[in-house]
Amino acid sequence: MAPTDVISFSRGAPSLDIVDIEGLKAAAAKAFETDPARIAGYGTAVGYPPLREWIAAKHNVPVEQVIVTNGSLQADAFLFDALVTPDSPVIVERPTYDRTLLGLRNRRGQLHPVHVQPDGLDVAELAEILKGGVRPTLAHVIPNFQNPAGVTLSGPKRTELLRLANEYDFVIFEDDPYLDIRFRGENLPTMLELDDNDKVVFASSFSKTICPGLRTGYLVGPTDLIKKITTMATNTYVAPNMLAQATVYQFAASGALDASIANVKKALAERADALGAALTKHLPQATFVLPDGGYFLWVDFGDDVDVDKLAPAAEARGVQVVKGTGFVVDGGQHSLRLAYSAVSTDRIDEGVRRLAAAVEDCR
Amino acid sequence: MAPTDVISFSRGAPSLDIVDIEGLKAAAAKAFETDPARIAGYGTAVGYPPLREWIAAKHNVPVEQVIVTNGSLQADAFLFDALVTPDSPVIVERPTYDRTLLGLRNRRGQLHPVHVQPDGLDVAELAEILKGGVRPTLAHVIPNFQNPAGVTLSGPKRTELLRLANEYDFVIFEDDPYLDIRFRGENLPTMLELDDNDKVVFASSFSKTICPGLRTGYLVGPTDLIKKITTMATNTYVAPNMLAQATVYQFAASGALDASIANVKKALAERADALGAALTKHLPQATFVLPDGGYFLWVDFGDDVDVDKLAPAAEARGVQVVKGTGFVVDGGQHSLRLAYSAVSTDRIDEGVRRLAAAVEDCR
Repeated sequence: MAPTDVISFSRGAPSLDIVDIEGLKAAAAKAFETDPARIAGYGTAVGYPPLREWIAAKHNVPVEQVIVTNGSLQADAFLFDALVTPDSPVIVERPTYDRTLLGLRNRRGQLHPVHVQPDGLDVAELAEILKGGVRPTLAHVIPNFQNPAGVTLSGPKRTELLRLANEYDFVIFEDDPYLDIRFRGENLPTMLELDDNDKVVFASSFSKTICPGLRTGYLVGPTDLIKKITTMATNTYVAPNMLAQATVYQFAASGALDASIANVKKALAERADALGAALTKHLPQATFVLPDGGYFLWVDFGDDVDVDKLAPAAEARGVQVVKGTGFVVDGGQHSLRLAYSAVSTDRIDEGVRRLAAAVEDCR
Repeated sequence: MAPTDVISFSRGAPSLDIVDIEGLKAAAAKAFETDPARIAGYGTAVGYPPLREWIAAKHNVPVEQVIVTNGSLQADAFLFDALVTPDSPVIVERPTYDRTLLGLRNRRGQLHPVHVQPDGLDVAELAEILKGGVRPTLAHVIPNFQNPAGVTLSGPKRTELLRLANEYDFVIFEDDPYLDIRFRGENLPTMLELDDNDKVVFASSFSKTICPGLRTGYLVGPTDLIKKITTMATNTYVAPNMLAQATVYQFAASGALDASIANVKKALAERADALGAALTKHLPQATFVLPDGGYFLWVDFGDDVDVDKLAPAAEARGVQVVKGTGFVVDGGQHSLRLAYSAVSTDRIDEGVRRLAAAVEDCR
């Protein structure tokens, strides 16, 4: 019988103890007190104006380049609707975020997966694909602490990717929700910062720095594209959620956001380190890259481990994992994604011990 | 020179004095206090569970028939994406809500407008169209205090429309955001209530009973369709806004919603009556139906008034109106929509006086 105290490495979400509920409650109250007319009204499709300005200042761009949306997946959906038509060639990472693959497939994009290495996308492989004649509309890249691989795109590769985007005239979709939760080392410049030719559309979110339930994400991109997406937003929902966005703004303006980020990073660092140590101890044959930030760690097992057997065996042992197969166009049969964002440090060793037992179960 | 104190009959939104900001602030605080985990987390695509249950109970349907969305326009968008493919025949009211027309046009639906009479959609005209061979996917109807016409679909016409939907096998999209803000007479049964054959998809919203900025609307429909739309919602934004929906729920559960509705209805009744009286006094040649609820009144002028001239003339006189042309596939040249929802009663007579002067200006 499975233990009743299930340990879940499955969902990329924070545990409640690293969400500042009191701070959010105060921010919502302040929003109602200081700006009732804009919270109550229909609002504007570009987002709550003070938050939009705050984001523009953070990324050092004109405000016209920013649209704030109901979560960043909604931003992706608008961007894909704007740029991806059936049979548009699109570069995706291998592995990559499952919802991105689904969104592109639903729009019948022609997917060209490029492997992810310990220092991010294999840009040499991408260059070969481009030399071979593929002319992508878009390259989707999660540069920091990639979901699911946990790796970070190196500085030289960022430069090279931008050079390729300029040479072959495609848009880099820099999908960067984990930017602010690096817990080791120094942040690299975003491609958005390095770009001087309108080749980058950047997306991020407050789901990882505050919490997911506020469903507040954003896009930064060329003014014309943002204008086009603003029209799409108007026609889809008039305006995004004004209460949530005003709450995010007040939370950021009060300094609570910085404190929340520091708290989240501390917890994630502890959890990632505990997960790395437990894997080394209980599953010495597995390989992984210890991430410098973010929520996820990708574990490769040998060819003798089939995750279609391992995942249910783990479930039976009381530990939940996500199979690698969901994150690639094909393959992923020998890999798992482990999310440490929601598991308290003192439960991680036990979770991995169960996983190791499940590996033995299905040998 | 235009007066600086512009009076706007243009936007269908409430004035801030009829929004219970204190009640909303308390509801948001209570949401954080009582259910932090579900507000902070990703939530579910069907909406915040207690609110979904509240809506199901209100409409006396199983909870599986309800999805709560980021405003009801988003619900429309999902429904149209699910049912309207290029060249799908769709019945629309003439006139109707401009964003509905745009959403259907963007999906290249084949629009068949049916006139609206003082007692709502001309069902005899619809029957003729159906007899003529048109087989619509969908008939979009705003049954109560229609936007823009202000009229209400009579009881016998509701029954007849349902009969036609059954005979010719089409979906009635009962778009009913104004249901709860009838300020005169008794509510008629919704077609959702009368339907026993899964022919009705019903949409409503809290924008008119609480405020638009919470962007919370919903659909009630056949379980399979709601399931399909739930998948679309998951792929578009993971889940709708949990903070806003939990705030709406607490506002409703505390009784503040009932008080808000009573307050809104009182204000709207006064404003509608003042508008009717002012039109009779200053524009005796204009014709209109005094609404029993909702936000809007539709004014028909004679053939000698062209709204392309009248609207700018009114703007120059310091009063904003919306031209009829936006609400019909063609025509509307001699009509205006006047929204009284945001104009305090003591300003209405002056607004209509200015409009009457503008009519004289462009004769």
